[in-house]
Amino acid sequence: VPPKTPPSGEFALIARYFAPLSRGVPGAYDLTDDAAWIRAEPGLDWVVKTDAIVAGVHFLPDDPPDLVARKVLRVNLSDLASKGAIPRFYLLDAVLPKDIDESWIAGFAEGLGADQHEFDVKLIGGDTTSTPGALTLAVTALGQIASGCMLRRGTAQAGDDVYVSGTLGDAALGLLVLRGGLNRLSPAARDALISRYRLPQPRVSLGPALLGLARASMDVSDGLVADLGHICETSGLGAIVVEASVPLSPAAREALREHPALMSAVLTGGDDYEILFTLPPAGREKVAALAHRLNLPLTRIGAMQSGSGVKVMRADGSERALDSPGWQHF
Amino acid sequence: VPPKTPPSGEFALIARYFAPLSRGVPGAYDLTDDAAWIRAEPGLDWVVKTDAIVAGVHFLPDDPPDLVARKVLRVNLSDLASKGAIPRFYLLDAVLPKDIDESWIAGFAEGLGADQHEFDVKLIGGDTTSTPGALTLAVTALGQIASGCMLRRGTAQAGDDVYVSGTLGDAALGLLVLRGGLNRLSPAARDALISRYRLPQPRVSLGPALLGLARASMDVSDGLVADLGHICETSGLGAIVVEASVPLSPAAREALREHPALMSAVLTGGDDYEILFTLPPAGREKVAALAHRLNLPLTRIGAMQSGSGVKVMRADGSERALDSPGWQHF
Repeated sequence: VPPKTPPSGEFALIARYFAPLSRGVPGAYDLTDDAAWIRAEPGLDWVVKTDAIVAGVHFLPDDPPDLVARKVLRVNLSDLASKGAIPRFYLLDAVLPKDIDESWIAGFAEGLGADQHEFDVKLIGGDTTSTPGALTLAVTALGQIASGCMLRRGTAQAGDDVYVSGTLGDAALGLLVLRGGLNRLSPAARDALISRYRLPQPRVSLGPALLGLARASMDVSDGLVADLGHICETSGLGAIVVEASVPLSPAAREALREHPALMSAVLTGGDDYEILFTLPPAGREKVAALAHRLNLPLTRIGAMQSGSGVKVMRADGSERALDSPGWQHF
Repeated sequence: VPPKTPPSGEFALIARYFAPLSRGVPGAYDLTDDAAWIRAEPGLDWVVKTDAIVAGVHFLPDDPPDLVARKVLRVNLSDLASKGAIPRFYLLDAVLPKDIDESWIAGFAEGLGADQHEFDVKLIGGDTTSTPGALTLAVTALGQIASGCMLRRGTAQAGDDVYVSGTLGDAALGLLVLRGGLNRLSPAARDALISRYRLPQPRVSLGPALLGLARASMDVSDGLVADLGHICETSGLGAIVVEASVPLSPAAREALREHPALMSAVLTGGDDYEILFTLPPAGREKVAALAHRLNLPLTRIGAMQSGSGVKVMRADGSERALDSPGWQHF
């Protein structure tokens, strides 16, 4: 029989830190029941997604707990957004070292609360358990979308333009900074890159606005080349990316001026959490209007074509050789 | 930028072992997309639940992988069943040590497949990631139920009978056997207890049959006394349990003949995955008929009463003192 601890522990933590995050959801019962119910609404599908993050793999063990919370929530919201869904609820598995500080949990819950407010989502269930290993967090997110309308990866067509939101490469460069690299960058640029690594900005307004406009869509989490590769593979196509058109932040431009070779990291580095989507060239004006309305850059970076694989064309017309298309775990 | 491995790894594993588990679900797209959709059906709610298990905490690192798979799935199905829901889908976060054998993953997926067949559920999404720590698995399960009918913990009333399905304590005693205890038990008894620890039997037929019959319901996972305590607390009541009425398997009876003090482990040990439910005494005949129809013991073990807390009454009329009501992680 496992060792016992006082009954104050686990349930007190849930009541104190997590139950308040479920307030106002009729089916969540303050997280005091075994499960929650969510009601179906006619004409809407639920879009479901789960993603886990692990200390030492997806975040640094000494990252502030509120940022870790927001990261695990946001990577899931980013996926829902890229599918065109409006985020509504999430469940959380918090797998925590036995000796964790209550202050860590308090900070973590504070981060969740801040993002619940920002993104209008609520916690409806979860599990809190101990581990002898690395702190691990899994979120399952649920969003709503008009029935049958979920945006997909496998529906691009040859000749589609390829667009991406925001800027690419900041998170990968931010991780380099955190690991002691890019020393000659200005402090402002270093801070900007680090914050993009630590705190993704899921494009929750953009995703639902792409319904009826985009043909294929996904978020960039494994790196541009890898993720565009996923669209290619599932659509049975290839793609070409014009390197000079890849959108870069001022901080990334500064880093690339110092170290031009880092362009590979920008193209393959991952953790961007921008939306990558395709649509026929006839939609260009609509995309421009949408970018204006959302005040968010939507940049045409290439095109889908027959064949397979992603080709990145450099300014001199040559094709960039890439060692590895992106991050994989095994 | 994180280290790279060949693109064959993660996605090949998903395609080979996990995608087949999603076949036949239109919204799952062979797990090649970022998310899945599930359609709402008018008049039905979705019941959602997540539970994580960790090597060295919830299972032993050398447990057979197919049994580990079935365990993480079944603990979630047990929760859905106790809420009256019919299990339909699940998502899986597989957080695996980097050096894991592919044969482990193959065995794990085989176990999932066997249980999908047995319980008529399908995988619709997940995440596969590496960890420097303990192998961790999180399942989020989705079941369906008539709108507004989810069975709850907090709805027991004073005077309700308290029932439990199956037998209690086998898993806790099985863990003792695995840890080298109970040496004088017969091999058959030892095997029976171990298999109850390793492979819960979620009462998926019982749960939905309790709709309209049970007032409160939950599954016994933290131990009888702790879980009945949860019903008490959320219902604002107390409960009394008649120790002599607690249902025991032949193997547990054999163990208790040798070591009567193990009755505490039976009452508080956890991992039973039986359903604990309450209803007014007027329903006794219906419960008996249900037990007969399902060929599953449903045993009246006590009653809800005003007050608070769970009292266990021994055969001599005294109250059993319990050190700790059940398992907690912190």
